[in-house]
Amino acid sequence: MTEFRVTPWDVEGDIDYKKLIEQFGTQPITDGLIERVEALAGHVHPLLRRKIFFSHRDFDWILSLYEKGEQFALYTGRGPSGHTHLGHILPWIFTKYLQDTFGCELWFQLTDDEKFVLSPHLTIDDTISFSYENALDIIALGFDPEKTHIFSDLDYAKTMYRHALQVAKRVTFSTAKAVFGFDNSTNIGLIFFTSMQSVPAFLPSIMQKRKVPVLIPSAIDQDPHFRVTRDVAEKLGYYKPALIQSMFLPSLLGPDSKMSASKSGSAIYTVDSPKVAKKKVMNAFTGGCQSLEEQRVQGGNPNICTVYQYLYILFEESDEDLARLKERCMSGEEMCGNCKKLLAAKVSEFLKDHQAKREKARDRIDDFMLSD
Amino acid sequence: MTEFRVTPWDVEGDIDYKKLIEQFGTQPITDGLIERVEALAGHVHPLLRRKIFFSHRDFDWILSLYEKGEQFALYTGRGPSGHTHLGHILPWIFTKYLQDTFGCELWFQLTDDEKFVLSPHLTIDDTISFSYENALDIIALGFDPEKTHIFSDLDYAKTMYRHALQVAKRVTFSTAKAVFGFDNSTNIGLIFFTSMQSVPAFLPSIMQKRKVPVLIPSAIDQDPHFRVTRDVAEKLGYYKPALIQSMFLPSLLGPDSKMSASKSGSAIYTVDSPKVAKKKVMNAFTGGCQSLEEQRVQGGNPNICTVYQYLYILFEESDEDLARLKERCMSGEEMCGNCKKLLAAKVSEFLKDHQAKREKARDRIDDFMLSD
Repeated sequence: MTEFRVTPWDVEGDIDYKKLIEQFGTQPITDGLIERVEALAGHVHPLLRRKIFFSHRDFDWILSLYEKGEQFALYTGRGPSGHTHLGHILPWIFTKYLQDTFGCELWFQLTDDEKFVLSPHLTIDDTISFSYENALDIIALGFDPEKTHIFSDLDYAKTMYRHALQVAKRVTFSTAKAVFGFDNSTNIGLIFFTSMQSVPAFLPSIMQKRKVPVLIPSAIDQDPHFRVTRDVAEKLGYYKPALIQSMFLPSLLGPDSKMSASKSGSAIYTVDSPKVAKKKVMNAFTGGCQSLEEQRVQGGNPNICTVYQYLYILFEESDEDLARLKERCMSGEEMCGNCKKLLAAKVSEFLKDHQAKREKARDRIDDFMLSD
Repeated sequence: MTEFRVTPWDVEGDIDYKKLIEQFGTQPITDGLIERVEALAGHVHPLLRRKIFFSHRDFDWILSLYEKGEQFALYTGRGPSGHTHLGHILPWIFTKYLQDTFGCELWFQLTDDEKFVLSPHLTIDDTISFSYENALDIIALGFDPEKTHIFSDLDYAKTMYRHALQVAKRVTFSTAKAVFGFDNSTNIGLIFFTSMQSVPAFLPSIMQKRKVPVLIPSAIDQDPHFRVTRDVAEKLGYYKPALIQSMFLPSLLGPDSKMSASKSGSAIYTVDSPKVAKKKVMNAFTGGCQSLEEQRVQGGNPNICTVYQYLYILFEESDEDLARLKERCMSGEEMCGNCKKLLAAKVSEFLKDHQAKREKARDRIDDFMLSD
């Protein structure tokens, strides 16, 4: 049995997502839910169709409200500990689909406070600077400036802190310890921080002075924070936020590796040049055999292949093309080199386009950022 | 042996201040220190001369720096959980003496965040409102508007929070538990709060972009917070703040009672009418005997008399007059009624004057208050 561990601050091991649903007590995304989205939206995003967003809490309730004509708001976030990689933007891409499809307001939190208290090597100036860099990526993805509010906890602290205290007053150390695994050596900034992460779930209601339903698309590792949020929400007169939760984009170096800035080649960053990104793809872990000859006979294994995973998760929208590729791989017709070239070309194209939009975002940052 | 307990949030029992110095590990105010103040200032405030300010940390260091021409800043505060009573303004009166005498800048913190997370019955609006009410009392005492910065943690959160995180990152739950006696049931807002109380000790240095020595006059119960502050100060590149610490003004109801808003008659509030205050004084606990006859024979006991204590601590500057009163009490010449009348008249006079200044302070609040 492979062991794994998923917390908001650390993801380790080979994750069994089915077990994670049991561990966390969330619900699986079902075909029925996907059909309801299709009926409402006309178009189901591949990240949902393929159940990369695989888990939820009360997403059915959000859909029921929407079916009755009640609008919901979106909230997602980013911990600005470094540059943005493709794994980070996975939930943002889905969030943009939700905004476009359902016409939602979006609150986008940059937790520069969290990353500062968490990381021994990061200064406040570092996390503030990464907040800005990450915001460029968010804007580049094309969120609606009229409906999107990006804010850093530090810059928006005057608003955030007072609402965070409403949460903090209702969360004991005992709860924080149980949910996050804190101990005596945890610093008191990190102990407090979950209160700040709760606040954006309530900001739409606070701003509109009425109860607004909120849906939080995020990677599954953030679930513990929102368990706390959901526990206090009704005590504060708000709805419990609903959650829709994604798997992680795997490391390009394969299942034994983590995506990490310290492991060059594990992740593709939005600031990587297409050339660097291409090199990372060409060095990626695949399900190929030791030799071409062997592979022609035995076929490759797309189930463990990071190149196939990147295509499946982010870079190949066509189910037919994917199925064909998988078949050709397993039957030994397609060699890893070709698949890598295919992915490298798609990644290059994405990066060129994204980086142009990212540069333009520098002039548009004030259209998006909230500050006290 | 009488038991007592002094924490920033609770003071219980008959306090042995000598033992408290040992427990807390502070230094006693010595005659030598008082002489040094006299040499520098010409005039020693009765609160120091009578050793109501009885304890310190590094006050000698502050004096040495000042002797060499280096200016220090002052920092004190108030937890706005209700209206101001005479016990609260005791350290403020001494702080004003220090500002006037040594020409110091003063940072005055209103911890509306703390009182909200601490008190089950207080809302944020309550503590914000008491912040304003308490600020009127501070201004009424005559602090120099050019040199005095009053701020509430909530209103000044954008500045406060980021510096508080610098402290929080360096304080473990283990430390907070040991210093404040926290346990699993403590809420995570209160656990974090000590970080906010540290910040004003560093604000003068932050604002002036150089290491500024800071002296914190306060009641002794705040010592635990500043032990934390002193522990992290040098790690952050600041001086450890020096402390000068006062005893508490006793409850008017005697040694078995606490000054508390819930015990009418225990404390005189700055918003009490002179008539109400007079009634409280006339009902005060004294060292008198059961009957006037008995007292004429046995004499009274000023050592346990709250009326004598109020005169000694706040309302009779003349050492000669006090000594004479004490003598006349102990010899049975002075009856409690007369002493009460004397104190009531002095309290009335103070309140009339203070309340007029307090009303004028409403128009001057912007001259003093910082906000982000």
